[in-house]
Amino acid sequence: MGTLADLGGAAGLLGWDRETLMPPAGAEARAVQMGTLAALHHRELVREDAGEALAALAGDAALDADMAAAVRLATRARDRAVRVPEELVRELSVASSRSVSAWAEARAADDFAAFAGPLGRVLVLKRREAEAIGVGDEPYDALLDEFEPGARAADLEPVFAGLRVRLAPLVAEAAARPVRTLPERDWDLEGQMTLAREVSEMVGFDMRAGVITRSVHPFTGSPHRGDVRFTTRLESHTPISGLSAVMHEVGHALYEQGFPAEADRTPVHDAPSLGAHESQSRFYENQVGRSPAFWERIEPTLRRIFPEAMSGVDAALLHDAAQVVQPSLIRVEADEVTYNLHIALRFGLELAMMRGDLTVADLPGAFADGMEDMLGIRPPTTALGAMQDIHWADGLFGYFPTYTLGNLYAAQLAEAADAELGGIDRAIAQGEFAAILGFMRERVHSHGARMPTADLMRAATGRELGPDALIAHLERSYLGR
Amino acid sequence: MGTLADLGGAAGLLGWDRETLMPPAGAEARAVQMGTLAALHHRELVREDAGEALAALAGDAALDADMAAAVRLATRARDRAVRVPEELVRELSVASSRSVSAWAEARAADDFAAFAGPLGRVLVLKRREAEAIGVGDEPYDALLDEFEPGARAADLEPVFAGLRVRLAPLVAEAAARPVRTLPERDWDLEGQMTLAREVSEMVGFDMRAGVITRSVHPFTGSPHRGDVRFTTRLESHTPISGLSAVMHEVGHALYEQGFPAEADRTPVHDAPSLGAHESQSRFYENQVGRSPAFWERIEPTLRRIFPEAMSGVDAALLHDAAQVVQPSLIRVEADEVTYNLHIALRFGLELAMMRGDLTVADLPGAFADGMEDMLGIRPPTTALGAMQDIHWADGLFGYFPTYTLGNLYAAQLAEAADAELGGIDRAIAQGEFAAILGFMRERVHSHGARMPTADLMRAATGRELGPDALIAHLERSYLGR
Repeated sequence: MGTLADLGGAAGLLGWDRETLMPPAGAEARAVQMGTLAALHHRELVREDAGEALAALAGDAALDADMAAAVRLATRARDRAVRVPEELVRELSVASSRSVSAWAEARAADDFAAFAGPLGRVLVLKRREAEAIGVGDEPYDALLDEFEPGARAADLEPVFAGLRVRLAPLVAEAAARPVRTLPERDWDLEGQMTLAREVSEMVGFDMRAGVITRSVHPFTGSPHRGDVRFTTRLESHTPISGLSAVMHEVGHALYEQGFPAEADRTPVHDAPSLGAHESQSRFYENQVGRSPAFWERIEPTLRRIFPEAMSGVDAALLHDAAQVVQPSLIRVEADEVTYNLHIALRFGLELAMMRGDLTVADLPGAFADGMEDMLGIRPPTTALGAMQDIHWADGLFGYFPTYTLGNLYAAQLAEAADAELGGIDRAIAQGEFAAILGFMRERVHSHGARMPTADLMRAATGRELGPDALIAHLERSYLGR
Repeated sequence: MGTLADLGGAAGLLGWDRETLMPPAGAEARAVQMGTLAALHHRELVREDAGEALAALAGDAALDADMAAAVRLATRARDRAVRVPEELVRELSVASSRSVSAWAEARAADDFAAFAGPLGRVLVLKRREAEAIGVGDEPYDALLDEFEPGARAADLEPVFAGLRVRLAPLVAEAAARPVRTLPERDWDLEGQMTLAREVSEMVGFDMRAGVITRSVHPFTGSPHRGDVRFTTRLESHTPISGLSAVMHEVGHALYEQGFPAEADRTPVHDAPSLGAHESQSRFYENQVGRSPAFWERIEPTLRRIFPEAMSGVDAALLHDAAQVVQPSLIRVEADEVTYNLHIALRFGLELAMMRGDLTVADLPGAFADGMEDMLGIRPPTTALGAMQDIHWADGLFGYFPTYTLGNLYAAQLAEAADAELGGIDRAIAQGEFAAILGFMRERVHSHGARMPTADLMRAATGRELGPDALIAHLERSYLGR
């Protein structure tokens, strides 16, 4: 387990560096190095003696709870790994590499026909992989289970259906509100990095165990709990884009800094799922970072760092400018209210593809129809429609739903924190970020991957997964209800 | 071989990051991760089937020259690795960790007694390791051979003796010259980083395949030929210290960018020894970077970047201020003329310790006596004497001589380049850095580790290793002869 954790940590650093510092001529060798680390990881995981040791330990009543959980998680990972034939692993790796290249070219040329073949090949292989893994009630479940252990398509379908029905009128009402925007100003990029660090430390990020830098696409990637790194994007015409990236990534980062130290170098020293991880980023981005109290709290900091750009700008204007709702084509640029409809659309489509109810050839039309149906706008090109995301090209079926699971859990956690702390908004207004982080440390972070996400969240919030908390948050934030 | 190269590249990045970006809380996990990569490297190297494959390939007449060299180098590395019992590897690792910790504390307290025990333990184990490896005519040879394959103590002794005899009068004469120093000015640190990049690119460093940053102790560490990284030190009161660090490290870096691409992921894709590597850093630092023509060449750049600090300063003053000779206590701060006496002293002492002619208890006195004898100054404390370097604490016996080998080879290479290019100074004055780099690419870099260093340098310079070229360079540079 220690070797696997160390290889994972080393790969984490290689990946981080690739996106932040690596010079262009290093790309090819880096890909090979990361491939070698992945191959060694796989080889360690599937070793015969590892399987025997895990089998022996699984029945060992003397194990403490943490080690029992570690054995369970390691066994799960090993079972998945050994069930997929090496030949299929290689075929999938080649097919998805080709498919990603084809996707990049096809998207640039808006030529779906050039992408359909490679994507179809990936789809066939992913279905074969799902059947080999054999988890859940249908092929999609086995893929979903990689990112969200224990989740099943049949359970998610009513959640997304309910969310969709309740979001539709909310979007219409919120989009009709008057829009306020910031005046044209220059927000110094070095000042924005200072802001990123100060805000991150304010909410509890430990700079002694972390690094913050800049990249085009913000992300968090950590070699270890003691070395948690995230990036932010910076745009000189607004501080809002960078700040919301910081609040999103710092949510991920605080989670990783809070993994249980006593479970170091075991699979317990992790989040139980991507949905759980995303619950933390969405909590800080949307539940904390979008509240009026948050903008009031950081207004003096903004005024100190950007005395000129802030002239005539106050917390209320910043808040309103960050809350514009507008149905739009691109998921990664979508506002908080429309965002989950983008996910609902993708979940429905990838599930239909995996079930054989939707062919690759019919995907662009189905995507456009779904977009029009849900958001009232129709992508004028496939590049702006079914080809906008890299996920399917890369074989990541079952990944999209975790974004919305994160949003749902974040809202439910916020309700629980609200009750526990006597009001989150009050706590933010009074700068009690340590109390907010303490709540998350106790209810989520310190548990690592011991429990499946559904159990962890049930214990943390006292609720089953559902749309109520998110809808209530959106109605309160955007419609003043 | 590919797996070993990739693990080495990954470890290279982890080490680089540790010195440049890693937050303090990441240190412990990083050490463990690097230990795991080293253990996997060792395990791959000593695999039975690897030994069988290498043995079979060693007799394969169909191998091309590069692959035959790769097999020879891999076999050499494997033979060394399998001869040292795992128990001894572990004991050495523990003992040198303890010894380094004890050294740091003992040096701070100037308490050699607290360091003598741990150092003695390392010495015993290193002798045992040397005997297990069994290369050369005496234990020291086996250790030296790790850093400088093929080198033997008995061959180096007369080289150092000759050097010592000829350096002594040179030091006395050079130190008696009048000293010129820069006026007190502030040399902007960002400007110095710009200078570092411009000078590096001027001499041929490819920024598309490289990174330059800042650290306390300058070093070069590369994940790959396509991703070569070095750091410089920056001091605001002078540009000379940073610039000489840049010229030193860029010499290492140009070498790595020039490793033979066709030998990628084999042991040929490397330098044949530390001495060979150091020949490149010393060539650029001392043979190029200390010439009057170099300072004249970069004077306009300095004036553009530092218009204020450069007022009243010209190339001649910069050159003279960089050429001050003064016997001093600390090796890493020594000037070019006295430097090799520091190494001669250490070579003699470590050889005597390994031969059993000098006990650890007698080391501080012997160090002080040797210093006084060679440089005419006596360290007032052991912290400033025998405890100033980390090398012995860390078990690095046989490492020091490679610094002087680098200086000797650098001077011999400069003589050869002088003949080939119609004068190095002329080439520098006319900005023909591509021609200088082309010479090194052809004679040194492109050969990788195919030949032992002695053969490589004999072919490159037409000379046997000796002090003549270095002495001539120093006499010309410092005494105008």
